[in-house]
Amino acid sequence: MKPTLEVGLIGTGFMGRTHAFGYTMAGKVFDLPLRFNLNTVADVTEEAAAKAAEQYGFAKSVTDWRKIVEDPAIDVVSITAPNALHKEMALAAIAAGKHVYCEKPLAPRAADAREMTEAAARAGVKTQVGFNYICNPILSLARDMIAAGELGEIRSYRGIHAEDYMANADAPWTFRHDPEGGGALADLGSHALATAEFLLGPVTDVMGDCVTVIDERPSGAGRKAVEVDDIGRAFLRFASGTSGSIEASWIASGRKMQHAFEVYGSKGGLSCDLERMNELHFFESGDSPDRAGFKRILASPEHPPYGRFCIAPGHQLGFNDLKTIEVAGFANAITNDAPEPFGFADGLRIQTLVEAISASATNGTWARVP
Amino acid sequence: MKPTLEVGLIGTGFMGRTHAFGYTMAGKVFDLPLRFNLNTVADVTEEAAAKAAEQYGFAKSVTDWRKIVEDPAIDVVSITAPNALHKEMALAAIAAGKHVYCEKPLAPRAADAREMTEAAARAGVKTQVGFNYICNPILSLARDMIAAGELGEIRSYRGIHAEDYMANADAPWTFRHDPEGGGALADLGSHALATAEFLLGPVTDVMGDCVTVIDERPSGAGRKAVEVDDIGRAFLRFASGTSGSIEASWIASGRKMQHAFEVYGSKGGLSCDLERMNELHFFESGDSPDRAGFKRILASPEHPPYGRFCIAPGHQLGFNDLKTIEVAGFANAITNDAPEPFGFADGLRIQTLVEAISASATNGTWARVP
Amino acid sequence: MKPTLEVGLIGTGFMGRTHAFGYTMAGKVFDLPLRFNLNTVADVTEEAAAKAAEQYGFAKSVTDWRKIVEDPAIDVVSITAPNALHKEMALAAIAAGKHVYCEKPLAPRAADAREMTEAAARAGVKTQVGFNYICNPILSLARDMIAAGELGEIRSYRGIHAEDYMANADAPWTFRHDPEGGGALADLGSHALATAEFLLGPVTDVMGDCVTVIDERPSGAGRKAVEVDDIGRAFLRFASGTSGSIEASWIASGRKMQHAFEVYGSKGGLSCDLERMNELHFFESGDSPDRAGFKRILASPEHPPYGRFCIAPGHQLGFNDLKTIEVAGFANAITNDAPEPFGFADGLRIQTLVEAISASATNGTWARVP
Amino acid sequence: MKPTLEVGLIGTGFMGRTHAFGYTMAGKVFDLPLRFNLNTVADVTEEAAAKAAEQYGFAKSVTDWRKIVEDPAIDVVSITAPNALHKEMALAAIAAGKHVYCEKPLAPRAADAREMTEAAARAGVKTQVGFNYICNPILSLARDMIAAGELGEIRSYRGIHAEDYMANADAPWTFRHDPEGGGALADLGSHALATAEFLLGPVTDVMGDCVTVIDERPSGAGRKAVEVDDIGRAFLRFASGTSGSIEASWIASGRKMQHAFEVYGSKGGLSCDLERMNELHFFESGDSPDRAGFKRILASPEHPPYGRFCIAPGHQLGFNDLKTIEVAGFANAITNDAPEPFGFADGLRIQTLVEAISASATNGTWARVP
Repeated sequence: MKPTLEVGLIGTGFMGRTHAFGYTMAGKVFDLPLRFNLNTVADVTEEAAAKAAEQYGFAKSVTDWRKIVEDPAIDVVSITAPNALHKEMALAAIAAGKHVYCEKPLAPRAADAREMTEAAARAGVKTQVGFNYICNPILSLARDMIAAGELGEIRSYRGIHAEDYMANADAPWTFRHDPEGGGALADLGSHALATAEFLLGPVTDVMGDCVTVIDERPSGAGRKAVEVDDIGRAFLRFASGTSGSIEASWIASGRKMQHAFEVYGSKGGLSCDLERMNELHFFESGDSPDRAGFKRILASPEHPPYGRFCIAPGHQLGFNDLKTIEVAGFANAITNDAPEPFGFADGLRIQTLVEAISASATNGTWARVP
Repeated sequence: MKPTLEVGLIGTGFMGRTHAFGYTMAGKVFDLPLRFNLNTVADVTEEAAAKAAEQYGFAKSVTDWRKIVEDPAIDVVSITAPNALHKEMALAAIAAGKHVYCEKPLAPRAADAREMTEAAARAGVKTQVGFNYICNPILSLARDMIAAGELGEIRSYRGIHAEDYMANADAPWTFRHDPEGGGALADLGSHALATAEFLLGPVTDVMGDCVTVIDERPSGAGRKAVEVDDIGRAFLRFASGTSGSIEASWIASGRKMQHAFEVYGSKGGLSCDLERMNELHFFESGDSPDRAGFKRILASPEHPPYGRFCIAPGHQLGFNDLKTIEVAGFANAITNDAPEPFGFADGLRIQTLVEAISASATNGTWARVP
Repeated sequence: MKPTLEVGLIGTGFMGRTHAFGYTMAGKVFDLPLRFNLNTVADVTEEAAAKAAEQYGFAKSVTDWRKIVEDPAIDVVSITAPNALHKEMALAAIAAGKHVYCEKPLAPRAADAREMTEAAARAGVKTQVGFNYICNPILSLARDMIAAGELGEIRSYRGIHAEDYMANADAPWTFRHDPEGGGALADLGSHALATAEFLLGPVTDVMGDCVTVIDERPSGAGRKAVEVDDIGRAFLRFASGTSGSIEASWIASGRKMQHAFEVYGSKGGLSCDLERMNELHFFESGDSPDRAGFKRILASPEHPPYGRFCIAPGHQLGFNDLKTIEVAGFANAITNDAPEPFGFADGLRIQTLVEAISASATNGTWARVP
Repeated sequence: MKPTLEVGLIGTGFMGRTHAFGYTMAGKVFDLPLRFNLNTVADVTEEAAAKAAEQYGFAKSVTDWRKIVEDPAIDVVSITAPNALHKEMALAAIAAGKHVYCEKPLAPRAADAREMTEAAARAGVKTQVGFNYICNPILSLARDMIAAGELGEIRSYRGIHAEDYMANADAPWTFRHDPEGGGALADLGSHALATAEFLLGPVTDVMGDCVTVIDERPSGAGRKAVEVDDIGRAFLRFASGTSGSIEASWIASGRKMQHAFEVYGSKGGLSCDLERMNELHFFESGDSPDRAGFKRILASPEHPPYGRFCIAPGHQLGFNDLKTIEVAGFANAITNDAPEPFGFADGLRIQTLVEAISASATNGTWARVP
């Protein structure tokens, strides 16, 4: 009989919703070593919390998130509250011995992320940070192809994450504009960095270029200065010696989900744009020149864990499926059947990279990543 | 308090799995007027049934599907067994007063589908047939644009459904090759026909072209003749006066999910290929010629019910999400909050079209659809 | 020393222009066995003729085309006048012993085309009909791949030629609407048929579907009935046994140059759309399933005669380059260095196919191609 | 009567060929104020020179390029010899009062390019440098849209020029690897920079990243060190305040002509990849969100000078057509009917940018462009 872990969810917005979906489906899609039970959900108003409980199937709802971390019945805590609260919530949950699944960013500052990471390590709980795009089977395929040498020696990398939800200059100042942890580099560049290291391993040096384009935004009745970057760019050096770059923008008018990369090696090239999240394009240099070209590989059961969702190739996974994969990975880590797929240490790593790039941009010089 | 309907699922293969997922998620994604409870699942072996119950969360498993239709506690029966069994199962379920959700095709022969449809109508139960592709928000968008006159008068249509799962001539003879109800036209052309009528309304006349390419296949130790079509084509006339065509193939090497259409009207054109199931391409003739072109519209919360799944545009739905939409539509029909989205009468309609095309192909003349 | 052939060009519109360009460039791009000299150009007004002579570099201009066919100095006559005049002009040129390069269609009726073809054969002159799309190196590549068995046994074909230059119902009645030889099938379907036979060999049986959508058009102060098809479709049977279809439309709003085809065989698939005329997409069934996909092959020097134009792959040919290739092929035929690439017999063949499809559509039954 | 200018061409390789084609066609495609006559061609061997004369239609051939610049009959000199010779040849031609059309790069070093530019200015001759990609009507369209404010305030730019002709590490050391003027940044990044300034105006500051990946190559019997960059990247600041980046690579396995850019403004976005050189993708932020998307605009007669080549939209220009446009622009400059489209001063500008980026990369700091 599989053990059942009781889940507490803090926050019921975009990400809270996807966590609820993920816990619901992970055990049905995958053969997990445990079950999740949706125990308690917290949101700031009774109405929101109750509605979420009803909708997603939690047994209880609360308005004080502390009731979740303090509840001895709860085994796993999902944190999808505003970024500034992640640390306090996570530390409390860790202190109570819960496993913690925290949305990205782990914390606005690397120092805080480090504190959280160390606390989790000391407590021996398992952790997960929500960098869902790397759960895409297409990215695993790319990583495996690279690792297997199908591209030969890797020679260059370009990563992008561009959307346009901040393109309207009249959109109001939000927590994402908070100088503490805000900005396109932190919000979206973090995804680009996660993918870069997922595919090619650690980055050792960076040269950043961070630009604020819309320098004030409506806030209440007035306007408030924006100090964070709308566009963040970086040159990269990987430990492997490969050079590359990333770019993040939240004002790229027309882009909705341009999480894209190109990797070039001595034996081939890969390109990918997650606006078509079920496709990987692969060029093999060894092909006869008259028959060579980028091949559009469609996600299929040949690319695990796609087949857990659908046995027919080309039928496509969606965004929410990525969260199901993420939860499944977390479950396997909790039971020690697998390492944490992307734990707090990994979330800290991303914050460290973001801060190194940001500092480099401020200084106008290359920076070594700590 | 929402009523809870007890679900019995017959069959646990590709489609059975998606039904289980759909029942699980529909009430979490949508605000439904009822709840579904996964009560009993049936499969031919105890092991398969028990495994499915464990995996998908059904309370009970059985090997005799009759136990489901005879169980007074069960309200809704999902039929995902081989096509040849649909009729017997559905009639039994209807006789027992269950609502029935049957995978496509409703039955191998239109006469059988008619019998099932009439039985359901007499019994007053609600029905659903699994033509999931028309649940895609992108198809609803296309239909709404056409209905709103955004393309002007509709002048032509071309629909395709091509895959390649029968392309290997050494793949064995299966139930899909049974002269009774089999063939690419019935299996895939049915989807193309459903989309054609979904978008443009009823087809009145057809001229078919059905071709058997691989005329025998391995079967047990020997080989067995194949009489059904590997490719089915048809010219169409719609009641609106528009002309068009469809083509179905299960031997289209390289195609995995080419459910595609192009619609041309006096004011614009649409094209779509569900190998990229979150995109619709739209040309507006009224655009200035120097700025005109097909526009790639990405599925977004502006296209219901995409926003129930994800509030961010361009993040994409997957195949299983279509089944969730399908189940939600069925739920609303059961509570009389909406008409059946695609009930047995619609499933019968598709069989009628398939048979008309098939007969036309045999005769080499145009046929009027009954 | 290469012989110089004196060229007379009749007509200076869209196609006349491309002929002039083709004669100019063919000898510079290719190593031809002869030279062309632009001798005389004819158009209906002195002004148009003189302007063309000046612009394209003809030594003389005339308003009476007979002066060209009667001029003993002229060796080659290009006919780009309205379709209804092709026959008279070509017969006169042939009678005078000229080689003739006639724009498509060879003649509005197959009977006329036959007369022209037989006259040319009797006279022993060389002929060329302007089916330029088959001059595209990408089409030669496709043909060669098919012929070499890279797709295995060919199982199905779909060809399309769709544009939208007649989509506006207020565009006036033109010679293209003349019941004698007009219609989308004749104008554009002819290209689709040429490509179909270029790739797969002769078509033996057809089932047509021809539809007039816009049944009258402005003509002078009034309106004139349109009897020709705006859309022409056909099912095809090739002599090889392969089945297929073509579709032609000149009212496909948004399509500018959708000359497209898909070919599926037992070992792979090809797809092509000449709106991207330098690309061929190739699927190889033998690829490992986890690395399979349609490969985008870019035209390159590996695909003759691309390299005559440009030694760098992916740099792309344009429409006018096709005419240069066409002229070069004609030149090699004139000197007996190669067979006629697409002579009057081929032009007649296309008219025969068009008429068979048209008759089949009228009768509503399959027709054998004579 | 139009004046005729006598043309001398130095070099008959890839670019020499395109110059010959361009001079041949420019006056036929465009209404030019002058004519070009192919007078003399030079190459290093008698055979190559004579063959080119025969093939392209030059009256004479020579092996000593000085005979061209010293020939008083010659008005225009085209220089397509190796880069290291451009300066000497151009200065000699200028000294002799010739108009000069020089392939890119104008010279390996900006100092030399400056000398050439100043010499031409003093002599009052007209000059042209072969940055052909900016002659593409699609780029003019993009520039015009930006200038007209269709994208609103421009907020970011990303430019790429990637090919793979140096991807094979066993390809020999060539003049392109010469530390004096060589490298991917100079060879391909120069195109990316030309396009960047063509679209958005002058760049004022750069931060470079130049990487040598293949550090030695075969040379004769041995191997020779490579010091130039295989990949060049730069962050950019434009005088307008916009930030951006470019990247150049000649080892991008699979890329043949990836001259690509994305521009984002407050009102929309543009993207373009010249591997599909007849397409521009345009997003308009003002579109209704449920109908918004990148629109694929096909080059058409609405986009001058496309219509000079072809009156039908979507039929496509090719690479060689760009050279025809380039020559036509040069012709109009020679007769003072228009400014030099891209003269020596512009070529110098590109070299200046290349050197600034290169120096910045060496120093690891931002550099102001002189």
